[in-house]
Amino acid sequence: MKRKTLGILGGGQLGRMLALAAQPLGVRVTVVDPDEHAPAQVAAEHVPLPYDDWDALDELGLSDVVTFEFENVPEDSLKRLERLRPVFPRANALRAAQDRWEEKSLFLELGISAARTLRIDTSEDAEKAFDELGPYLLKTRRLGYDGKGQIFVTDRSRAAEAHAELQGVPCVAEEKVNFQRELSVVLCRGQDGTIVSYPVVQNTHKSGILHLSLCPAPNMSPELEAKAKSLATRLAEKLDYVGVLALELFERDGELLANEFAPRVHNSGHFSIEGSVTSQFENHVRAVLGFPLGSTDPVGYSAMVNLIGDLREPAALLALPDVHLHDYGKEPRKNRKVGHVTVRAQSREELDARLAEVLAIVSAPSSASA
Amino acid sequence: MKRKTLGILGGGQLGRMLALAAQPLGVRVTVVDPDEHAPAQVAAEHVPLPYDDWDALDELGLSDVVTFEFENVPEDSLKRLERLRPVFPRANALRAAQDRWEEKSLFLELGISAARTLRIDTSEDAEKAFDELGPYLLKTRRLGYDGKGQIFVTDRSRAAEAHAELQGVPCVAEEKVNFQRELSVVLCRGQDGTIVSYPVVQNTHKSGILHLSLCPAPNMSPELEAKAKSLATRLAEKLDYVGVLALELFERDGELLANEFAPRVHNSGHFSIEGSVTSQFENHVRAVLGFPLGSTDPVGYSAMVNLIGDLREPAALLALPDVHLHDYGKEPRKNRKVGHVTVRAQSREELDARLAEVLAIVSAPSSASA
Repeated sequence: MKRKTLGILGGGQLGRMLALAAQPLGVRVTVVDPDEHAPAQVAAEHVPLPYDDWDALDELGLSDVVTFEFENVPEDSLKRLERLRPVFPRANALRAAQDRWEEKSLFLELGISAARTLRIDTSEDAEKAFDELGPYLLKTRRLGYDGKGQIFVTDRSRAAEAHAELQGVPCVAEEKVNFQRELSVVLCRGQDGTIVSYPVVQNTHKSGILHLSLCPAPNMSPELEAKAKSLATRLAEKLDYVGVLALELFERDGELLANEFAPRVHNSGHFSIEGSVTSQFENHVRAVLGFPLGSTDPVGYSAMVNLIGDLREPAALLALPDVHLHDYGKEPRKNRKVGHVTVRAQSREELDARLAEVLAIVSAPSSASA
Repeated sequence: MKRKTLGILGGGQLGRMLALAAQPLGVRVTVVDPDEHAPAQVAAEHVPLPYDDWDALDELGLSDVVTFEFENVPEDSLKRLERLRPVFPRANALRAAQDRWEEKSLFLELGISAARTLRIDTSEDAEKAFDELGPYLLKTRRLGYDGKGQIFVTDRSRAAEAHAELQGVPCVAEEKVNFQRELSVVLCRGQDGTIVSYPVVQNTHKSGILHLSLCPAPNMSPELEAKAKSLATRLAEKLDYVGVLALELFERDGELLANEFAPRVHNSGHFSIEGSVTSQFENHVRAVLGFPLGSTDPVGYSAMVNLIGDLREPAALLALPDVHLHDYGKEPRKNRKVGHVTVRAQSREELDARLAEVLAIVSAPSSASA
């Protein structure tokens, strides 16, 4: 019997959870990750070589399909892989997500509202942007994540300095949006164009890093829920997308503004391992390998809390009912995502009560130093 | 940070599902299994050596705790491991489960009803047993599983022949019980004596191999449910048991008769991966490593269907809502358990409808030949 195999560029926690979801489907996984301690290696064949190593890519190319757990795949590596095997999601989605200017242009083209954004190539651009936008977020066009590569410019006279601090690389200036909350839509699109969407979740960040997701997001009108999903769907269809895609949104006075999208499984979809009939990880594997997609119906109410820095007290977390630990097997380090916890309940009230207990443990100071 | 490690003797599907459940807890797993294709290797370090190989056992002994996925652990291997590390469940439970005569004696001692059973050492014993029991099941005392090592003796004149067919090894004769149905209780006992029990499930066998489990078992009175759990609890407490234990029962006219118990995770508990808040696999890992046990509350109604011989049509199974495939990664072979499917629903009626669709696919003849 011929079973399918999956190659993943990147062997961090996303690769790990993809691999753990792939195994019950009989799918064997190979990951390429230069980190000798790559978290995914516990459930995958691990090739400990750089992402632009031709031998590593050739080994990935032995899999039936190749995917990735991060969007900043080197262009040449992507081209090489595409010559070997089907790569999902496709290169167009990666390219759009890799560059904040391209991404915003795509949103505009699709009629998806977003914060007003200007292209910044020079320090003069950075200063002029202040005249137009007032206080704004200066973000590198490429390679930003978890709040890295961005500076809040509150004073015209500091604009050029901020740009210099980001090494003068190509940037965008984004109007500061005074939003009421952050939401995200995680969907999965199959090779045949079928789309399944998870409930819209509400996200809270701390220091630029996702802290908490609530599924479903509280106080969502059916209209807002449908609107959010339709934006993500528009994007996925435009890109002829295959796999899981996450769209981050700001809600401002009942209006939805796109922040960014991720062409991969996403931290705000981690709740789905216990909180959905089929997890985002399993659905991504199903999609890229051409299997039918699974139901995204919720299983009760759920919340996901990231464990940043260290795991706090795993035994205390495990002692709470319907609380599920996901330890990524990483060493503690300041601001590092080392795990997450899913809390599940049968009502919003029960969820809130359980979540309070989890947060009391998780909010204890991390022992991890820089 | 010091994470715990777990050694498992045996790397089949049970070891595989234990390892997949251990990873999110940050527990790394080593399995010993002479089969070079041992299914557990996808989520564990695999030592491909025999169960009585001293080097293999020493390697297992590097783990914090050792457990096993089958009860027929060679006596010397068990003793060796016990000198190296804590082994859970303990040797007393294995010894009782390894020998049908010891097992039945233990049931009797604990006041747990069971089919009348006689000890058979000679062909004369086999003949005399017929006088006492009428038609009976002749079973080898050791090493029987999935209906292997047993013969139904329907005629006194064939008794000696049947015993010879089982190589004249020590056997037991069990009265044939005209039961209405088969039930089982899966429980987990922690190192501190805490016991959590899954709902009683109803099992259906085909050719001596488990075919279907329903959770919860239909038409259970609270009294019968409590009675079944109390029998398993009595057994676990008597053995000062640590880990998951399964007790198989026959229901006959409202009375419960113990069939056998398994000192390990059990096929009739597979539903718990999706059908319970915490799976039997995760709870076993928690118990043997001394973590708090997780809730065994049901998540909806669920059913487990074994895939025997081959996987039938995985894509057809995946296309059904809330149907979860577990492919063990084994090659197809007649009568081999190669995977299972969990079906989940929010009501008994919905479950029955979904199960009918699954059974229509699974009941197709297996393409696997002998």
